[in-house]
Amino acid sequence: MTDIQASGASKTVRVELGARSYDILIGPGILARAGEEIARRAPGIRAAIVTDETVAPLYLARMQDVLRQAGIASSAIVMPAGEATKSLSCLGEVVDSVLADRLERGDTVIALGGGVIGDLAGFAAGIVRRGMRFIQIPTTLLAQVDSSVGGKTGINSPRGKNLIGVFYQPQLVLADTEVLSTLSPREFRAGYAEVVKYGLIDQPEFFEWLEQHHAAVFAGGPERVEAVARCCAAKAAVVAGDEQEHGNRALLNLGHTFGHALEAAANYDSARLVHGEGVAIGMALAHRFSAQLGLISGQDATRAVRHLQTVGLPTEISQIPGPRFTVDLLMDKIAQDKKVSKGKLTFILTRGLGQSFVARDISAEKVSEFLAGQLDAPA
Amino acid sequence: MTDIQASGASKTVRVELGARSYDILIGPGILARAGEEIARRAPGIRAAIVTDETVAPLYLARMQDVLRQAGIASSAIVMPAGEATKSLSCLGEVVDSVLADRLERGDTVIALGGGVIGDLAGFAAGIVRRGMRFIQIPTTLLAQVDSSVGGKTGINSPRGKNLIGVFYQPQLVLADTEVLSTLSPREFRAGYAEVVKYGLIDQPEFFEWLEQHHAAVFAGGPERVEAVARCCAAKAAVVAGDEQEHGNRALLNLGHTFGHALEAAANYDSARLVHGEGVAIGMALAHRFSAQLGLISGQDATRAVRHLQTVGLPTEISQIPGPRFTVDLLMDKIAQDKKVSKGKLTFILTRGLGQSFVARDISAEKVSEFLAGQLDAPA
Ligand SMILES: NC(=O)c1ccc[n+]([C@@H]2O[C@H](COP(=O)([O-])OP(=O)(O)OC[C@H]3O[C@@H](n4cnc5c(N)ncnc54)[C@H](O)[C@@H]3O)[C@@H](O)[C@H]2O)c1
Ligand SMILES: NC(=O)c1ccc[n+]([C@@H]2O[C@H](COP(=O)([O-])OP(=O)(O)OC[C@H]3O[C@@H](n4cnc5c(N)ncnc54)[C@H](O)[C@@H]3O)[C@@H](O)[C@H]2O)c1
Ligand SMILES: [Zn+2]
Ligand SMILES: [Zn+2]
Repeated sequence: MTDIQASGASKTVRVELGARSYDILIGPGILARAGEEIARRAPGIRAAIVTDETVAPLYLARMQDVLRQAGIASSAIVMPAGEATKSLSCLGEVVDSVLADRLERGDTVIALGGGVIGDLAGFAAGIVRRGMRFIQIPTTLLAQVDSSVGGKTGINSPRGKNLIGVFYQPQLVLADTEVLSTLSPREFRAGYAEVVKYGLIDQPEFFEWLEQHHAAVFAGGPERVEAVARCCAAKAAVVAGDEQEHGNRALLNLGHTFGHALEAAANYDSARLVHGEGVAIGMALAHRFSAQLGLISGQDATRAVRHLQTVGLPTEISQIPGPRFTVDLLMDKIAQDKKVSKGKLTFILTRGLGQSFVARDISAEKVSEFLAGQLDAPA
Repeated sequence: MTDIQASGASKTVRVELGARSYDILIGPGILARAGEEIARRAPGIRAAIVTDETVAPLYLARMQDVLRQAGIASSAIVMPAGEATKSLSCLGEVVDSVLADRLERGDTVIALGGGVIGDLAGFAAGIVRRGMRFIQIPTTLLAQVDSSVGGKTGINSPRGKNLIGVFYQPQLVLADTEVLSTLSPREFRAGYAEVVKYGLIDQPEFFEWLEQHHAAVFAGGPERVEAVARCCAAKAAVVAGDEQEHGNRALLNLGHTFGHALEAAANYDSARLVHGEGVAIGMALAHRFSAQLGLISGQDATRAVRHLQTVGLPTEISQIPGPRFTVDLLMDKIAQDKKVSKGKLTFILTRGLGQSFVARDISAEKVSEFLAGQLDAPA
């Protein structure tokens, strides 16, 4: 387990990757300290901030101010908000803007935004001049607990999500837990699904802690900092053991094989389903499927599902608005998922609360039988 | 010095990069063995071949044949020949074609062509699914002795050459010295400038060997294999010591600061100047500049220049057809070169034949005085 260091109201998690190790600073008011924290680690740099049209009016001016006070000159490129920004043409725009500023290899690209901006800016940082410095300032709960940690960057292809990118580690992650208060309740909840995921993977005591403290995590304050730090520590430990995702990093995909299939079936229409909601339903399905396979008790499966319901997350396929899905459609999407290797289906299943494991060789027939039952279930 | 292993008419150079080490096989008839060499190292793969419109009619069918005989199914994408292909839109086409073939992370992208195809295909291999297997089959002399070795991949930006890319090592390089016989004499000569470069960097005995054997290198046969292998070994040694180009890899830029400025001043118009010709003139300038600074004898400088002239390479700025260059134009292009760090000019100069060194802090004034003299020189 990766250590969490506490100092005042904030916490630090270190991602151990040899020469590429870095700190994640988590807490309220981190944004105000961003200039000094960056300047201390990288003196004399210039920076290009990548952000989106929703985040810019909220935090960009403040960000550029604190950088200026620390002696860091910055420019900014503001992209449209939303998943469509993870495209080759937007990547080209960001790359061109960084080059137009004549930043050198030792200068810095800063991602200020959610996972979309982090994935796009990180990819750009990884390829401009074959690699610039890169700093993540995640502003969504999902980005703070998941996408900003671990170095996966990339964009989507018309042929699928996240198919183009590089592994490229940031030099620093600054997670200000106060900026999450401007997130829509729906986006916060979606990020919370990923928080629950860490408990359900292999930390039953964290899952129990969330059952007790979820209201405080949503409200803000020390419990929010604690939750984000625990998730970062969990992800950091996995990443340190498997930087390029060859092995047990797969556990992080709990709920994601079903979740991705649902997102694809809903045509990635965020009015119908956002990623975290897909993951919530996907985790519920993974637990029910595990129960049906006799791996976990019905009681434990229900307990996992109930906590997701308590915070208002969907847990049934039928809760997705719009046209109904068929088993064939979902099976087709599952088969297209890149976690399918050489034709065999790989699922993350569980033997108990917080006892997930990678199940390879799951037969397509069993999955489709299970899904048929789920689609018949009443809304 | 990296070892060269000989077996029959061919030679093997190993690039030592820990877990990313790989072999370069050099010799006549390597193409015919490509299928078995690839299948031996990567059984069960499928491959996407990236090539260009000049190389495809010459070698693509044969390549797909030998792969098929070794049990490797392949598809091909044929790009226009020439530097303009190193663009973001061509990158998008290659990436899409690899994804369309549904290749997985363990499958292979094969670059069959010169440095343009190698740089483009290598970049695509580095970013599709965050990294596929990659094999270089260089078909120009320049690609065999330089661009296919070392893992630098990338494309051009409207703001400059090679500004976007990744360090991404191939798993194997197959250099068939016979395919060089279909190269135009001009392209072969341009590649030969890079061969001479290795001698002039730090191998005076190799430079002397070239003075004696250049005709045989141009004609083909064992001397050509020997020359390519010595260059690969030299580059492999530098790369092994500095994979990501932080330090002494800079010596490989002998002749390139001047050369790149000339290419830029000629608007990258290959009718006026191709890269190797720019390097030839650049090396001549570096030697004359070193003589003017009193670092090397006029006799040694003249000897370096004379060998380039003997094989028909240009060595004077005035040999570049088209509008004359001014000192200001060239100084401006030198200042824009990315090897200029924080305003100081860095040049590779020499203290004798094959005794190059990195000179930082060269004053712009000295350079511009020197260039003024060169531009006044009679054609
Ligand atoms: N790289 C990884 O390891 C990884 C892991 C998980 C997810 N992801 C990627 O992350 C993306 C999803 O990330 P996301 O959920 O953060 O989406 P997002 O970046 O689109 O952010 C969601 C919305 O919230 C807005 N927003 C961001 N911060 C805000 C704030 N503080 N206040 C108000 N509004 C704010 C954004 O403008 C956007 O409209 C997906 O593209 C997914 O593929 C990547
Ligand atoms: N990655 C690196 O480390 C590195 C190093 C040096 C140069 N480069 C890059 O390499 C590129 C130049 O490479 P190049 O000189 O090989 O150019 P190229 O790839 O454009 O090839 C030159 C021409 O020869 C043709 N050709 C290739 N093989 C042939 C064959 N066997 N027979 C007949 N014609 C053939 C091509 O179609 C092309 O028209 C530049 O873009 C340069 O930036 C990269
Ligand atoms: Zn997720
Ligand atoms: Zn060169």
